[in-house]
Amino acid sequence: MPMTTGAHALLDALHAQGVAVCFANPGTTELDLVRAAEEGTGMRFVLGMQENVCTGAADGWGRMSGRPAATLLHLGPGLANGIANLHNARRARTPVVNVVGDHTSWHLPYDAPLASDIDSLARPVSAWVHRIDRPADAAPAAREAVRQAVMGGGVATLIFPADHQAASTPADAPVPTAEAGMPPPSAWDPAGVDRALRASRRPLFLLGGVGEHGALSARGQRAVARLLSVTGGTAYAETFPARAERGGGLPAFDRLPYFPEPARAALDAADLVVRVGALPPITYFGYQGHPSELVGADRLLCVCEPGEDAATRLEELADRMEAPPYLEPALSLPPVEPGALTPPRIAATVAAALPEGAIVSVEGGTCGYPFYAASAGAARHTTLTNTGGAIGQGLPVALGAALACPGRPVIALLSDGSTQYTVQTLWTLAHEGLPVVALIAANHQYAILRNELRRGGELGPRAQALTSLDAPRVDWVSLARGYGVAATRAATTAELDAQLRAALATRAPALIEMSL
Amino acid sequence: MPMTTGAHALLDALHAQGVAVCFANPGTTELDLVRAAEEGTGMRFVLGMQENVCTGAADGWGRMSGRPAATLLHLGPGLANGIANLHNARRARTPVVNVVGDHTSWHLPYDAPLASDIDSLARPVSAWVHRIDRPADAAPAAREAVRQAVMGGGVATLIFPADHQAASTPADAPVPTAEAGMPPPSAWDPAGVDRALRASRRPLFLLGGVGEHGALSARGQRAVARLLSVTGGTAYAETFPARAERGGGLPAFDRLPYFPEPARAALDAADLVVRVGALPPITYFGYQGHPSELVGADRLLCVCEPGEDAATRLEELADRMEAPPYLEPALSLPPVEPGALTPPRIAATVAAALPEGAIVSVEGGTCGYPFYAASAGAARHTTLTNTGGAIGQGLPVALGAALACPGRPVIALLSDGSTQYTVQTLWTLAHEGLPVVALIAANHQYAILRNELRRGGELGPRAQALTSLDAPRVDWVSLARGYGVAATRAATTAELDAQLRAALATRAPALIEMSL
Repeated sequence: MPMTTGAHALLDALHAQGVAVCFANPGTTELDLVRAAEEGTGMRFVLGMQENVCTGAADGWGRMSGRPAATLLHLGPGLANGIANLHNARRARTPVVNVVGDHTSWHLPYDAPLASDIDSLARPVSAWVHRIDRPADAAPAAREAVRQAVMGGGVATLIFPADHQAASTPADAPVPTAEAGMPPPSAWDPAGVDRALRASRRPLFLLGGVGEHGALSARGQRAVARLLSVTGGTAYAETFPARAERGGGLPAFDRLPYFPEPARAALDAADLVVRVGALPPITYFGYQGHPSELVGADRLLCVCEPGEDAATRLEELADRMEAPPYLEPALSLPPVEPGALTPPRIAATVAAALPEGAIVSVEGGTCGYPFYAASAGAARHTTLTNTGGAIGQGLPVALGAALACPGRPVIALLSDGSTQYTVQTLWTLAHEGLPVVALIAANHQYAILRNELRRGGELGPRAQALTSLDAPRVDWVSLARGYGVAATRAATTAELDAQLRAALATRAPALIEMSL
Repeated sequence: MPMTTGAHALLDALHAQGVAVCFANPGTTELDLVRAAEEGTGMRFVLGMQENVCTGAADGWGRMSGRPAATLLHLGPGLANGIANLHNARRARTPVVNVVGDHTSWHLPYDAPLASDIDSLARPVSAWVHRIDRPADAAPAAREAVRQAVMGGGVATLIFPADHQAASTPADAPVPTAEAGMPPPSAWDPAGVDRALRASRRPLFLLGGVGEHGALSARGQRAVARLLSVTGGTAYAETFPARAERGGGLPAFDRLPYFPEPARAALDAADLVVRVGALPPITYFGYQGHPSELVGADRLLCVCEPGEDAATRLEELADRMEAPPYLEPALSLPPVEPGALTPPRIAATVAAALPEGAIVSVEGGTCGYPFYAASAGAARHTTLTNTGGAIGQGLPVALGAALACPGRPVIALLSDGSTQYTVQTLWTLAHEGLPVVALIAANHQYAILRNELRRGGELGPRAQALTSLDAPRVDWVSLARGYGVAATRAATTAELDAQLRAALATRAPALIEMSL
């Protein structure tokens, strides 16, 4: 019987199940997986200099490809460094196979310096946690991890002690890629939804952006537009969709506002809120005087849950209601005002320069909201947002998306505060030569915190200091060059437009610091 | 009765218990603590751009001051980002009060995007985890956290929901700073140790570096040297001491080697291993053919456990054994060879340039081991090492040490791979204007992993690629300047010597990229 090692068996089984890439920051306890990467497996390995780069990239990969990427992290501390972006992946329902090495099993009782309770760290972000307890378990555990990740739409964590990586085990017969059994679809009642919609005076469709057949796919949004032409009312994307198709003749559905007052105003105008792949809307934080639930159960209706095939149900519903065919709206881009950069001017400039088929990873409120509104009339593109609120996600997700979609230009529209958390992503972009243009809205502050603080009154000097990134100002051009990424600085719309178009033309990584 | 808020009550109680500084990276759920920082509390707030900067700085502060610093982190993801350096603090037995905000309590059932199981994340690195469940609990919880942190020598985590921060509560009467009751000291048998040492032909003292009265304090090491003059044999520092006094006429005790072969060779030469504030020695990882325990129980003797007052026991023992007074050894510095930088040349150059009273934070094997050996004959200084193996600790620890010891120059002797994990520390150094000189050994690879890989044979191309930081090379001078830190590059010992002395003279943060 042909023999292999536990590490080989894991990589081979993952690759056979369609896991094509591994975002890795290995350490000593993962070295047999590194040795196994040498031969026999077709998996691509991409090195990150910090683990949150790897986990965020796996999220971006999974959102765009629909298949899980693997990670490779170094015991508890390496996992911990990657947890924030696994949290975002969990909220995005992105399939990820999260591989974490551990001490050689017989060494664990000695509580060596790097030992820790990996299970306790993994559980809060994982749909499934499994410890490989012998080399023969590596291949079946890999297959089950893929199944769990795809089926559950989440993170499957495999903890793999070093000795079981190194040890010999009979090679498994190859197992064909399984179409992971999806959980049974949620029940729905098309006739009931039809009736309720006809009875409603002002329905509001709340559209979730998980998966390629989500409500924010092109098919899904076109079907919603058809429905609206029958029912009247409005539609919103959920506030933080994992993935939304935009522009190119799709409808101009904005995101539900972030703060409770405008969100409630939008929702209160509706007598019926129809969830399509979106969770019941709640406030982002608990705000005094605002109940957590933005809509009572009596006004809520569900077409499907997040992660399900919303597009097909929406089309079925539109046909059933005899909605007319989809008509592309006549949308135009907002004009690009010349002058010093402001968030709306940045939004208009980027929307106007978007190439067909672009992917835009949006993080940070400063430009994120204006851009989403401005880009409805842009060329067809895909927008990815920060689903879990753990900041430092925008650039790694862009990295993963660029690897998943070779040929598609990627723009990361970011804020300076959040991008610092995973600034090391710039190196991997340079190392892999990926066509990602990072746009940094440099206002040198945690603007979102100041906005939240101002809800309670004026900012005192300490609150000012604790939300200021101003002394010294980070020089993003210098940082980017330090990581081998070409960089420029733009202060006006004309400069941003010229620099963005030039950067996109190079098909290489670039960074533009946008002075605000 | 005077009223206050839960947030005020927490900060006031922490400050009254001697917590003088808070390393903060707050988010929305911590804003009432930011508001409370505005007035009435004397605590200093230091902003980090990433949480692992804050937790590592708290570790450095605690190691040098003996008192806990506080942290302020943003729910589960913010905590997760800081876990790696909390892991190191735990292994260093550093007292830390780790404050983590959480959602408003009545919002928690709705599983908002940023919600997660904070307890599960905190437990692996915390000696104590407590959730504040009403505003009146804030002050007592703060006092108990300090007690737990100091008594247990570890991380006490307080989870503080936003509503309990904001709510009114009667102001506590001020409670004087408690000398935290220490746990009862471990039993020891001076007469038995005396007898065993006299019976031993070649004893080996293994010295732990926790606390200011540890075996690696000046008093502790002098007492060990006195004992050795009676007993013969040798002494080693544990491989990764939290804190070791060095130079200035102290004995030249090297660190126990890292790899199992040389560690075992050192230990096997002894017929008795005397633990003084050090754990029983084990291999760092599980290595095939090497038992985890480097010394059997039959050869081990204990004077005291980590964190106890080793210096006093050692002096008592030396007096009992009628050891002669301490005699300063005649130590000289290794000569500084001119020419291109190599690790031994860097070690010799830095040791020669060390100012009296310097603190040296050492991370990374490339220069760390040669420096420790070379610096025995240097001016008196304190060395801090990476206790838990979670890399990205050296620079944050230097930051915390510099704040704890104003007036003392701080040098961080670092490797390029590990420093990337918390590169954002550079900004806080510039922001606070701290006299930390970061020396980056830039070999553009994960050298430790290559050394480990070579134990199993030659490096293949993928192993080479996954341990290479070479394409592109990080430009550390550009990175440092991006964060507002003055930076230069040194390729020879003469350049390093001149740049290091010039940087130390500025009393401002500086970085020197040492080309290897």
